[in-house]
Amino acid sequence: MSLIVVGTMAFDAIETPFGKSGRIIGGSATYLALAASNFVRPINQISVIGYDFPKADLDALAARGVDLNGVQVKKDEKSFFWAGKYHLDMNTRDTLETQLNVLAGFDPVVPEIYQDSEFLMLGNLMPKLQLSVIRQMKQRPKLIVMDTMNFWMDSAMADLEEVLKEVDVLMVNDSEARQLSGQFSLVKAAKEILTMGPKYLVIKKGEHGALLFHNDKIFFAPALPLEDVFDPTGAGDTFAGGFVGHLAATRDISFGNMKNAIIKGSALASFCVEKFGTTRMQEISQADIEDRIQQFVDLVNFDISLTN
Amino acid sequence: MSLIVVGTMAFDAIETPFGKSGRIIGGSATYLALAASNFVRPINQISVIGYDFPKADLDALAARGVDLNGVQVKKDEKSFFWAGKYHLDMNTRDTLETQLNVLAGFDPVVPEIYQDSEFLMLGNLMPKLQLSVIRQMKQRPKLIVMDTMNFWMDSAMADLEEVLKEVDVLMVNDSEARQLSGQFSLVKAAKEILTMGPKYLVIKKGEHGALLFHNDKIFFAPALPLEDVFDPTGAGDTFAGGFVGHLAATRDISFGNMKNAIIKGSALASFCVEKFGTTRMQEISQADIEDRIQQFVDLVNFDISLTN
Repeated sequence: MSLIVVGTMAFDAIETPFGKSGRIIGGSATYLALAASNFVRPINQISVIGYDFPKADLDALAARGVDLNGVQVKKDEKSFFWAGKYHLDMNTRDTLETQLNVLAGFDPVVPEIYQDSEFLMLGNLMPKLQLSVIRQMKQRPKLIVMDTMNFWMDSAMADLEEVLKEVDVLMVNDSEARQLSGQFSLVKAAKEILTMGPKYLVIKKGEHGALLFHNDKIFFAPALPLEDVFDPTGAGDTFAGGFVGHLAATRDISFGNMKNAIIKGSALASFCVEKFGTTRMQEISQADIEDRIQQFVDLVNFDISLTN
Repeated sequence: MSLIVVGTMAFDAIETPFGKSGRIIGGSATYLALAASNFVRPINQISVIGYDFPKADLDALAARGVDLNGVQVKKDEKSFFWAGKYHLDMNTRDTLETQLNVLAGFDPVVPEIYQDSEFLMLGNLMPKLQLSVIRQMKQRPKLIVMDTMNFWMDSAMADLEEVLKEVDVLMVNDSEARQLSGQFSLVKAAKEILTMGPKYLVIKKGEHGALLFHNDKIFFAPALPLEDVFDPTGAGDTFAGGFVGHLAATRDISFGNMKNAIIKGSALASFCVEKFGTTRMQEISQADIEDRIQQFVDLVNFDISLTN
C-alpha cells in the first residue's frame, strides 16, 4: 500500500476577503501528503525545497509518515513562492507573484527505496517532470493519478499529451476539461478526454462538486455546503490526496471504490477551506473525518422505490 | 390527492444557439401541469388565456387530467407573450419582448370544485395574486409550495414578504436566494429565508443541481449531466411540478419523501431541456421517467463503510 506523491513544496502568501495569511507553507505535494496520510502511510514524497523551508514543517510531515528521502534540498536557493488574491466569490483568484526559485532547475529523482510503490500521484507540475517520474519507475505502478492545469495546456501541450497516454486517472477542473477537449458540455468533454489516455476522469467543479467518468459510467459527488469558505488554497490537492490515499490504503481500484475515494477526498477538501493554508489539515482527527463523511452520506442519501 | 396549480399560460418565442422555436405554448402553469400530471390527476389549473390560445393545446392538457375550470378565457384579449434569447452558456438569457396582455388585469378565482384540494402550487406570478389564491381557500391546504423570481424582489418586496409568511415550501434559484437573504453563502441564505415564513427551502442551481433545506437538515440532488441542453425554458417549473406532483400523489410531506420529490422533479427537468418548449414533456412515458430516475440513483449512489 505504498504511495508516491510528486509535486511542489512551497511558500504561499494568500489574500482573501477575510484577511492575509502572511508567508505560510503550501505546495501541491504538501497538501497531497497531508491529505493522503490520513489513510495510508508512508507517503513517499518527491519534491524540491530551498534552504529556507522550515525544519519544523518537515518534521511535522515526517511525523505523519511522510518519507522525505525524495525531497531534494537546494542549499543555495530559495523555495518556490506563490502569492495570490481571491476575489469576493472565492471561486476566482489573481496570481500576485510567482518566484520559481528551486523549481526552475528541478529534476525529480525517484529514490531506490520508492521503487516498489504501487500508487503514483503526480501533482500539478511541468508535464516533462511528471513523465520523467513515470519513466524512472522500473515497474509500472498499479495506478497512476495525474493533476494538471490550464497553464500547461497553453505552454506545453505536446508534453502534456505524452503524459496523458501514460496515466490511469486524470484530474482537472471544469474549465480545464473544456479547454483540453474543446467541448463545452462536460459529458462530451469527458468522452473526448477518455480517448487521450486516461481510463478515468475526475472533473472538479469546486463548490459544485466533482464528477467521475469511466467508460459510460458517471458518478457525482457534491461539495459539502459550507457557511463560509475561508481559503480555497490547496482544496484541489487535498481532494486528490484523499482520493489516492483511500485507493492506496484499500488497494482496490474498482469504479465502486473510486466513488468512495471521491467522497473521502471531498470530505477532506471541505476541512481544508475552513482556515488559511494547511492549518485545518494539521488539526483534524480520524473522528472528525468520519463525522464529515457521514454528513456527505446524509446530504445525498435518498430511498426511492421504482415500480419496474 | 388533489392539487391546484396557479401560474401563467403563455406563448413563448425562444432563441438558443441551436435555433429559434417560433411561437410555441409555454407559461409556468403549463409546465407545472405537464410535469405534475405524470404523478397525480386531476391537476386543478388556475390561469388566464386570451382568444388566441390554441384549442388543441387545451385539449391536450385536458387529456392529461388537467381540469381547466379555473382557467379564465378573455375573449377580447391576447394571451401573455414572452420572447427570450439564451446566451452560449445556456445559463443566462435576455428577455427580448414581454406582452402582458391578459395578465395585466388577471384576478385569479378559485372555483368551488377546487376547494377541497390538499396541495397548492403557486407558480411564479405577482405576489398579490399568489396571496389572493391562498386567501380564497376555505381550508388551508396541507402543503403550499411557492415559486417566485428576482423581479418581484425588486418591484413588490412587501407583497412578497406577505406571501412568504403563508407558504410551507419556497423555491428559488441561487441568485434569488442570495438577493432575498442578503447572504452570499447559500447555507447562511437558507437560514435567513427559513425565518421569513417557509419551513422548507429549495434552492435551484440549474446544471449544478438543487438543495433542500429544513431546520438543520440539508439534502442535495445533482442535475443529470447531459450531452446537450437544447432549451432550458420551463425547466424550473417542470422541476417544481414534478416535486409537488410526487408529494400530492403520495400525500407524504416528510423530509424523506421531499428528497424523493426533488429527485423526481430533477428527472423531469432533465427531459424538459432536451427539446424546444413543452415538446419533450408531451412525449415521455412512465417507463422513460423510471429509467431516468434510475440514472439519478446510479449517479449518486455509493456504499461507504464507516468504522465508528
